Amino acid sequence: MNQHVSTHVNGDRLWRRLMELARFGATEKGGVCRLALSQEEIAARAELVRWGRAVALDPSNDAAGNLFLRLAGREPALPPILVGSHIDSQPTGGKFDGAYGVVAALEAVEAIRSHARQPRRSIDIVAWTNEEGARFAPGMMGSAVFTGVRRLEEVLRVKDKTGVTVGEALWHVLAAEADLLRRPLGFPVGGFIEAHIEQGPLLEQQRATIGIVTSIQGKCTFRVEVTGEESHAGTSQRHARRDALVSAVGIVQALQDAIWDDADEVRFTIGMFSVTPNVPSVVPGRVVFSIDLRHHDAETVRRLAILVPDVCQQARGRCEVGVTKLLSDAPLQFPAQTRVRIRDVAERLGLSHLELPSPAGHDARYLHYVCPTGMIFIPCKNGISHNEAESIEPADAEAGARLLAEVAFELAEQPQ
Amino acid sequence: MNQHVSTHVNGDRLWRRLMELARFGATEKGGVCRLALSQEEIAARAELVRWGRAVALDPSNDAAGNLFLRLAGREPALPPILVGSHIDSQPTGGKFDGAYGVVAALEAVEAIRSHARQPRRSIDIVAWTNEEGARFAPGMMGSAVFTGVRRLEEVLRVKDKTGVTVGEALWHVLAAEADLLRRPLGFPVGGFIEAHIEQGPLLEQQRATIGIVTSIQGKCTFRVEVTGEESHAGTSQRHARRDALVSAVGIVQALQDAIWDDADEVRFTIGMFSVTPNVPSVVPGRVVFSIDLRHHDAETVRRLAILVPDVCQQARGRCEVGVTKLLSDAPLQFPAQTRVRIRDVAERLGLSHLELPSPAGHDARYLHYVCPTGMIFIPCKNGISHNEAESIEPADAEAGARLLAEVAFELAEQPQ
Repeated sequence: MNQHVSTHVNGDRLWRRLMELARFGATEKGGVCRLALSQEEIAARAELVRWGRAVALDPSNDAAGNLFLRLAGREPALPPILVGSHIDSQPTGGKFDGAYGVVAALEAVEAIRSHARQPRRSIDIVAWTNEEGARFAPGMMGSAVFTGVRRLEEVLRVKDKTGVTVGEALWHVLAAEADLLRRPLGFPVGGFIEAHIEQGPLLEQQRATIGIVTSIQGKCTFRVEVTGEESHAGTSQRHARRDALVSAVGIVQALQDAIWDDADEVRFTIGMFSVTPNVPSVVPGRVVFSIDLRHHDAETVRRLAILVPDVCQQARGRCEVGVTKLLSDAPLQFPAQTRVRIRDVAERLGLSHLELPSPAGHDARYLHYVCPTGMIFIPCKNGISHNEAESIEPADAEAGARLLAEVAFELAEQPQ
Repeated sequence: MNQHVSTHVNGDRLWRRLMELARFGATEKGGVCRLALSQEEIAARAELVRWGRAVALDPSNDAAGNLFLRLAGREPALPPILVGSHIDSQPTGGKFDGAYGVVAALEAVEAIRSHARQPRRSIDIVAWTNEEGARFAPGMMGSAVFTGVRRLEEVLRVKDKTGVTVGEALWHVLAAEADLLRRPLGFPVGGFIEAHIEQGPLLEQQRATIGIVTSIQGKCTFRVEVTGEESHAGTSQRHARRDALVSAVGIVQALQDAIWDDADEVRFTIGMFSVTPNVPSVVPGRVVFSIDLRHHDAETVRRLAILVPDVCQQARGRCEVGVTKLLSDAPLQFPAQTRVRIRDVAERLGLSHLELPSPAGHDARYLHYVCPTGMIFIPCKNGISHNEAESIEPADAEAGARLLAEVAFELAEQPQ
């Protein structure tokens, strides 16, 4: 019977929902700005809840704002299978990063529900809180708290650029969902499958529909704060200035050089760089910037991360510099058992597939610590992501949902 | 009789008003954030109008938002003498930059009013609109429009970072002052004297109370826009990126080197540097930064300004770069006649004085094009300005107001 679950996947409905979800925070250039815990995300969550209720899925949330839609199983006491991703976006993000994984999970669960037999275990569609880390850093906050990697009290204190805390923003989200069941934080999970766009070019280049994710690269992030002294652009002499921008630019150049690898396997990015007071005729007194460092090899990440504070100190010029390590996640391998299951189902469905590593981080990273976890990639055009031009093919979206439906159903049929 | 006007200057009242004005937009660190055309500035303007009305000065404004308080003269048909400065501030500005010139003008005019004889010409205290250019660039907007250097329609379209135009912000200012007389834009003026803090260390170093300003250095400003492509920090290879931050940092370094002078007479500042989308895990797609270039010699400014577009193009790496010249003001010399008058009065009052150039720009720059203009500096602590720590001595503030009262009265006594 299992091979029939995927026949209930409706590609048109899946695509229509992706487009409808993209209206929440839609940008002029066809992308999405749906920051974590924003009004736009609250409205998108409400739409998800309506879609779920319309097909008798039970909505719930937890104290970290993670949102669930449950299809009850025959043996509801068994740990459920989770399928999903996130619906928050970058400020100039695309329609599919995260959203695809949640909408595909809803499509998969509707297909399972249309199937003759109720699954043994319950299946929860999940939208994790603040995966992107764009408004509140670092990201993957909901899954980190759910799995015990980080403490709730700690993340509630994180502030956005305007001084709003996660705690305050989350209060508005949970207040808007006061009619939902509140689940305990971090309940036992029987397995987690996350579908996602690849965010790289490999599937497209190799003309494969499905990526079976082998691993996630290691990641280390820093916050660097350069402190000088504000002075008047027309009066203060350059040799006497403590110009935080001049020092920060020197530090960035030194870091770019120190962390360059000819093989171009290391990912090193300064994505956030904020100047105070940031007006034309005042010598900047302060610069804060982010460092995002990634590589598949744990030793390489460790070796390069050690360099960062020293390079910053050596290049600081006449300013002070403070370096704070925010996050250090080792590289991980997804279990062979999950990868083999995804591959077998893909072959049964006749879907071309490829094993590949994930250079991006995902909530699956943290779920991997608490349950058998796997990831399914579908292609995205030219590998472009974190960009309003992000694009996927409807046929690939449908294929991924069919695969997800079969795999989720198989996992949900497993006994204890 | 003239030497007696200054005896009516009340140093305590002057200082009390400086402290009271500093409450509008007061910051925690003892500075002021009173951006041009903001609610804080509207409230501060209302306080000025109250102070003026209390001593029978007639308040008025013009279509550019310049605010006037008039002491009527015996021959009101003669072009009036203007005394004043501005009350907008930098976002992390001090209590005295601009505000001193307006409050000292009010004190001077009150002293003249307390004097036995009404002056021949009317005297207008003036607070020019948006001198700082922090919220809306470039600055000295009110005096530029008043003197015909820029057109009103052009400046009304300028936007702040949130997209609000000068026109919209100005509408709120003028609506709040609907009961004031509306003066024509750019009426004839018989002379302008601006008192200001030095914003440099010379008076303090040489233990002089009064600076007689000889000149204002030339200034050229640019807006540089670097355009790359947003991509994912974890997936995109560095050699394939079009990282706008990496290119902008290279351009800034190249400009710093190209515009370095060993004599350290050139002022070169990048005060504004804004990254889009400015989040840790997205490779920046766009950087916009400002260039502020100043020198006392016109030829030096011209020579260095010509370098800017070429250096930007050569250092742009894999991104596109656009360079826009915003402003190009030649160095100017204030007329000897005004400088001699200020010096003679200072000597009569027994005030130590010094001739010195102004490295900063002031509204007096544009008034110089339409009437005999002069500037009076008083010392500021350690030369610090555009900084919340800006500080002056009450005795110096009073001395400057006494000098201003005498000079303004002499000018107002002049026949046609």
